[in-house]
Amino acid sequence: MLNVVQLGLGPLGQNIVRFISERRGIQLVAAVDPDPAKQGADLGTLCGLKSMGIPVSNNLATALQDKHADVAILATVSDIEILELQIEEAASLGLHIISTCEELSYPWESFPRIAKRIDRTCRIYEVACVGTGINPGFLMDYLPCVLTSVCQQVEHIRVSRIQDASTRRVPFQQKIGAGLSLAEFKAKEAEGTLRHVGLTESIHMIARSLHWTLDRVTESLEPVVATKKLKSGHMPIAKGHAAGVEQIARAYVGKKEVIRLHFRAAVGEPESIDSIEITGNPSMKSVISGGVNGDIATCAIAVNAIPAICSAGSGLKTMLDLRVPGCFDGS
Amino acid sequence: MLNVVQLGLGPLGQNIVRFISERRGIQLVAAVDPDPAKQGADLGTLCGLKSMGIPVSNNLATALQDKHADVAILATVSDIEILELQIEEAASLGLHIISTCEELSYPWESFPRIAKRIDRTCRIYEVACVGTGINPGFLMDYLPCVLTSVCQQVEHIRVSRIQDASTRRVPFQQKIGAGLSLAEFKAKEAEGTLRHVGLTESIHMIARSLHWTLDRVTESLEPVVATKKLKSGHMPIAKGHAAGVEQIARAYVGKKEVIRLHFRAAVGEPESIDSIEITGNPSMKSVISGGVNGDIATCAIAVNAIPAICSAGSGLKTMLDLRVPGCFDGS
Repeated sequence: MLNVVQLGLGPLGQNIVRFISERRGIQLVAAVDPDPAKQGADLGTLCGLKSMGIPVSNNLATALQDKHADVAILATVSDIEILELQIEEAASLGLHIISTCEELSYPWESFPRIAKRIDRTCRIYEVACVGTGINPGFLMDYLPCVLTSVCQQVEHIRVSRIQDASTRRVPFQQKIGAGLSLAEFKAKEAEGTLRHVGLTESIHMIARSLHWTLDRVTESLEPVVATKKLKSGHMPIAKGHAAGVEQIARAYVGKKEVIRLHFRAAVGEPESIDSIEITGNPSMKSVISGGVNGDIATCAIAVNAIPAICSAGSGLKTMLDLRVPGCFDGS
Repeated sequence: MLNVVQLGLGPLGQNIVRFISERRGIQLVAAVDPDPAKQGADLGTLCGLKSMGIPVSNNLATALQDKHADVAILATVSDIEILELQIEEAASLGLHIISTCEELSYPWESFPRIAKRIDRTCRIYEVACVGTGINPGFLMDYLPCVLTSVCQQVEHIRVSRIQDASTRRVPFQQKIGAGLSLAEFKAKEAEGTLRHVGLTESIHMIARSLHWTLDRVTESLEPVVATKKLKSGHMPIAKGHAAGVEQIARAYVGKKEVIRLHFRAAVGEPESIDSIEITGNPSMKSVISGGVNGDIATCAIAVNAIPAICSAGSGLKTMLDLRVPGCFDGS
């Protein structure tokens, strides 16, 4: 039995708690959230389950005062600089760490100093740490790398994740700018708050796996504009307003494009699809029609990674370093 | 730089040699084959490459007399009982082992005593050993398990590998009975020589990953009968003769089917396709239209697994235990 402490009890964190409660072989022993309204609440009750007898605490040391845990799941912040402090504390308590923070999925290029510090900290305390989720963490990086396992040679990788956001959680719809006027969209984009984070991380993870040295990485971001009034999302969207976002990241060796990641998430998108196209020897195209629901998948992969992170050795890892974190829902 | 010794220089082994010669970061240092006609031949020349200055030897100890190797690739025999002796010798020389032997991919259920002995031997010599290939080893076991990583729950897994065998190597076309009369097909089937090996291994690997306890596994085998004269294979096939083989393996928990693997390889098959359908939360269907060419892929994954096996720890491993063995074709 592996003991888990959950840090962060927003919608994602609460869903992770529900998922863990359904599994055998793992169990929650403590939970932490800084929200004063949640302090002392029963973890199970807070997450819509039966009482677990686990009070929500506002700090990790207190939460684990008389308990042993193996793994901490951090569904707390998106900012890796803040996350670093949380990782340090968890590592110092001997906990392996799984986080849904996008920037942690492959921080070696975007945040090399932070990555090195986290790696050193984890090695000192002999724990492993990984960032995961549906994307980054699986669909646009890990899975393409897995598929290259049967290739002798790779020339180009193209990954597309096209999603109808109508059925995604409200914060996700807000994050992609659904419903904003184009002026509001541009303002939020300038603030840096409207953006799917992770394409650059995914590109660097793929390049690392292939042992490619990239010369240049670009990323574009545009609104997907509603061509008619849309009602399928969490609020109606007027014609001419943003229905979502389209981002394209490209990586080059010399002048040659070698990786292209295409992310498009919008309310009313006619067809959800996840596709991976490898040009090489052999070439192949893998398609998941309908796509993979990200809200379920991000929580599931964080839970499925629990046994894998416990046997991953010490240091800051990427998903590529882990044994297959497959679903384990049997006895 | 990782040093590799190749054991077995049939078509598969020679292709592995060619693939290794195209990569950076790995190199061949020795080669072994029992065929007297190949003794002393230059490995490169034998494989249609430039001379490598490596003479083919008929035993491993001699081949490595004054050389250091990290990994042995065994493309030698299909019979795990004979393979065990080769593994023992390679392990005793401190070599990690990658084999294309189908039965080694997951021997824990079909050959538990041999599996335990191999595991013990590898632990004694502190080396790792894995069986891999396109199938078993990737398409019908590893990849489905990878896809479950984003599932909270799995009810059923259905994998289909449907192949037009016209473009596969001649021994493969012979193995699936292409061109035999139905009487010859039945006779070869009774001998046990006409059969794609690996479906049972794949089923047990999937069940292990999901922590499922199976109650029953069945496997059927039927000829695919040519409905007209076929000319696309290595020899013409008369109408009414076998064009290939169809095998279906099913796993049950109680009376409920939980895994179905459908393998069909025949000359003239109209559409090659690899598909994985997971029923669960979430459900998904992943399709590779055109399928993956097994001759390239089996050699590529054996080569790609070289770095991964070196960091896998000690013992008999499965593909599930390895870090992602992605293609590494960069500098």
